[in-house]
Amino acid sequence: MKFIDLNSDLGEGFGQWKMGDDNAMLSIVTSANVACGFHAGDPAGILQTLKAAHENQVVIGAHVSYPDLVGFGRRNMDISSNELIADVIYQIGALKGLATAAGTTVSYVKPHGALYNTIANDEYQALAVITAIREVDDNLALIGLAGSRILDLAREKGLRTVAEAFADRAYTPQGTLVSRREKGAVLHDTNEIARRMLQLVTEGGVDAIDGSFTHIQADSICVHGDSPGAVEMARQVKITLQQAGITVQSFIQTNK
Amino acid sequence: MKFIDLNSDLGEGFGQWKMGDDNAMLSIVTSANVACGFHAGDPAGILQTLKAAHENQVVIGAHVSYPDLVGFGRRNMDISSNELIADVIYQIGALKGLATAAGTTVSYVKPHGALYNTIANDEYQALAVITAIREVDDNLALIGLAGSRILDLAREKGLRTVAEAFADRAYTPQGTLVSRREKGAVLHDTNEIARRMLQLVTEGGVDAIDGSFTHIQADSICVHGDSPGAVEMARQVKITLQQAGITVQSFIQTNK
Amino acid sequence: MKFIDLNSDLGEGFGQWKMGDDNAMLSIVTSANVACGFHAGDPAGILQTLKAAHENQVVIGAHVSYPDLVGFGRRNMDISSNELIADVIYQIGALKGLATAAGTTVSYVKPHGALYNTIANDEYQALAVITAIREVDDNLALIGLAGSRILDLAREKGLRTVAEAFADRAYTPQGTLVSRREKGAVLHDTNEIARRMLQLVTEGGVDAIDGSFTHIQADSICVHGDSPGAVEMARQVKITLQQAGITVQSFIQTNK
Amino acid sequence: MKFIDLNSDLGEGFGQWKMGDDNAMLSIVTSANVACGFHAGDPAGILQTLKAAHENQVVIGAHVSYPDLVGFGRRNMDISSNELIADVIYQIGALKGLATAAGTTVSYVKPHGALYNTIANDEYQALAVITAIREVDDNLALIGLAGSRILDLAREKGLRTVAEAFADRAYTPQGTLVSRREKGAVLHDTNEIARRMLQLVTEGGVDAIDGSFTHIQADSICVHGDSPGAVEMARQVKITLQQAGITVQSFIQTNK
Repeated sequence: MKFIDLNSDLGEGFGQWKMGDDNAMLSIVTSANVACGFHAGDPAGILQTLKAAHENQVVIGAHVSYPDLVGFGRRNMDISSNELIADVIYQIGALKGLATAAGTTVSYVKPHGALYNTIANDEYQALAVITAIREVDDNLALIGLAGSRILDLAREKGLRTVAEAFADRAYTPQGTLVSRREKGAVLHDTNEIARRMLQLVTEGGVDAIDGSFTHIQADSICVHGDSPGAVEMARQVKITLQQAGITVQSFIQTNK
Repeated sequence: MKFIDLNSDLGEGFGQWKMGDDNAMLSIVTSANVACGFHAGDPAGILQTLKAAHENQVVIGAHVSYPDLVGFGRRNMDISSNELIADVIYQIGALKGLATAAGTTVSYVKPHGALYNTIANDEYQALAVITAIREVDDNLALIGLAGSRILDLAREKGLRTVAEAFADRAYTPQGTLVSRREKGAVLHDTNEIARRMLQLVTEGGVDAIDGSFTHIQADSICVHGDSPGAVEMARQVKITLQQAGITVQSFIQTNK
Repeated sequence: MKFIDLNSDLGEGFGQWKMGDDNAMLSIVTSANVACGFHAGDPAGILQTLKAAHENQVVIGAHVSYPDLVGFGRRNMDISSNELIADVIYQIGALKGLATAAGTTVSYVKPHGALYNTIANDEYQALAVITAIREVDDNLALIGLAGSRILDLAREKGLRTVAEAFADRAYTPQGTLVSRREKGAVLHDTNEIARRMLQLVTEGGVDAIDGSFTHIQADSICVHGDSPGAVEMARQVKITLQQAGITVQSFIQTNK
Repeated sequence: MKFIDLNSDLGEGFGQWKMGDDNAMLSIVTSANVACGFHAGDPAGILQTLKAAHENQVVIGAHVSYPDLVGFGRRNMDISSNELIADVIYQIGALKGLATAAGTTVSYVKPHGALYNTIANDEYQALAVITAIREVDDNLALIGLAGSRILDLAREKGLRTVAEAFADRAYTPQGTLVSRREKGAVLHDTNEIARRMLQLVTEGGVDAIDGSFTHIQADSICVHGDSPGAVEMARQVKITLQQAGITVQSFIQTNK
């Protein structure tokens, strides 16, 4: 029997500004990466998202970021280890507080945007994120890019790790993401995306951009997308997996 | 045998900007009101303050504020109940996270600046702060102005409350603070301040600005001050109390 | 021959967050109140809006606000005169700089949100805004609520003033806005709104909420609205006015 | 007859937080790099600094930065050209507005911190800064690191440039700054610093860290320093230069 987790970025509004359809996504995914205020998310909006996640029995993760609201956390920053450790702890703590008020808990951490990409390979910042998680709550799992160095580092330091694949991204033969600057890096055909994710779960990999097969070990699929069709894509991925007999559930339930 | 707590505002730098002499104050006070990032305090600086407080065995409180960094939380804001509740929970949660990393815990909440003054009498915002504390951790005590309405409200809602007096402030015959706009509102003579605080603990009140005696029931004395002599004032208050046989200790120890 | 100006709030996105349909509105209105970064608007987004306004030959105003991004400038703040003066100058200056880069200029100031409402009657803050405008550029006009005290104050101080009416708001028999808390305060029927604005221009007033006629002297109509139908409402108001032979043009052109 | 300009970073407080002794520095330097709100400086504080600069007849420059208040603009950011251009224009415009209110004008731009270091050699960000200056006011001069690539680029694009040397920094034989990570990078002996700056003006260079002589063509000396002795260093440099018959005046006066 096969299992897979579906995760998405949520709570990414700020004050009067809305982003995405949290309620629709929460009826589909099994894990919610909730913004913590540094790239998006004001306290009142975060609390609302946490309550909705709790009602939908969706597992909650802290979507921690560089402090860069205007850049939505998508710009690399040369931040010192001390600063990054404290920034990550601050965000996890704030989300834990709001989660308690919403009657739920935080189960994992998924770094956002530029921080996510940087720590996939930059050991200095990766160790800062790992240290932060261990110091605030070493029961928190860490979601990272499947095949990236940070997952090994985190495991060495005693953290539980979750490898993720991206539903709408093309992969190189080496199993890394095709850069967004390359043609064909982002997939748009919902049926094709769903078929690939079924392939991922059943065959342990996907067709790479050159047509070869590349192995990807993934515990979770990120079905987030900024496009208007993101909800429909997520739904199609879930239905296709379930119709093939795969259980879509949080990695927390699978690995307990 | 008599007991009293001494509290002070700490961790009020921000990035490159410093404020006050945290290390000196931590060698004197028994309770540290630590900024949470909304009026002052960046995560790395807060963490440093928490570690120093822990080393000095000083009890830690969350010094929560309106979101107003440039105004240092000293400007009244018409903020909705939903927003205020979530803002307070967010700050408490963030401080709890950092406190865990520093090997310590958060024991109480003391609202800062304009929020402190507003909730002393504004029931709408007072209830929002009380609700926030109860939702995130109902074991947290609330420090408020001695004689103010919020302390009654908080007790009615089941919170532990701590009444505080201000060492360097004049009082009206009714036991309220003389407005800062009035002449003589702020005291500067260290010996006089220390004498009055001894009077507070031994007689249960102080000489009011008109010369009459006003009763003030206080569990804690705020020895914070923005003036350069703040540390010296705090030290003098502590020594005077101790020489009179009064035990200076956290209200946590006294009332456990 | 009759003239009227149509104004709307624009440039109110922030980073990744969008708000409203600036391009559609810029094809309708004759004056654009452009956010300056304190309640909304990041520099790159503001610059884009200014370029689009310039292409559409729309006159530009500085939509200045309290410093409150998370509250979208809608929360009253007890801000000192010195702070408010400098905050308003800073915002006007920033917008002037970006307008120069966009090949255009700033012609007026329209305070936003809570600041707009407060200065309608609060002389302390009203004088701060007037002082700020005079100190940075006394050729800038000030848009304010028709019938409000600030317009008199601004004229006394030598500023050119522009009185505005709100297309989608109900009025009291005294010519003031019906509070949003009251039933019927906000109008939704596009035809009714357009008819009333025609009445405003041709009769010098509108039907008040009690059915009586209330005089309103207005140089500009604010056709802004947060609802999805805002663009359609603005278009309908413009067409109705033009079909009745009224010239819709900037107050700058009318009063030169 | 020889001339030299002395510049320093000013207006770097924020709200309640102070930094440096602006008044003392303004009695010494001939050019003031005034913070614009992105790394430091709130509008009311900036306005105060501008008024004091004006009273002291000190020439004013815009000290523009990445948007990074908590990091004091000292952390590199991967910011897009569009964003950087608009950010720089916004800051220059804001400072121009406040300068008008203070009865003075902005004469040059000096990028701050990480932005200053990055554009010394990164053509992508350098061109963004140059474009921003040209779009908002091509009469503004640009202060940059003596010998750096950006000065050539700026001249090619028609900007007036000002090369600066740092009073308290060691130089390599190639005329570049010794990295702060190296031993001896920052000089502390006030007499030695003053002697070197006299050497700079009279001999056209200074002794490099290896004892050789390195040529440096500089129009301005940055006498800023974060140390408590910064004011004394600046004073000593000025006195030493003046006693040797060198005229200390703004580069604006020298090159007009």
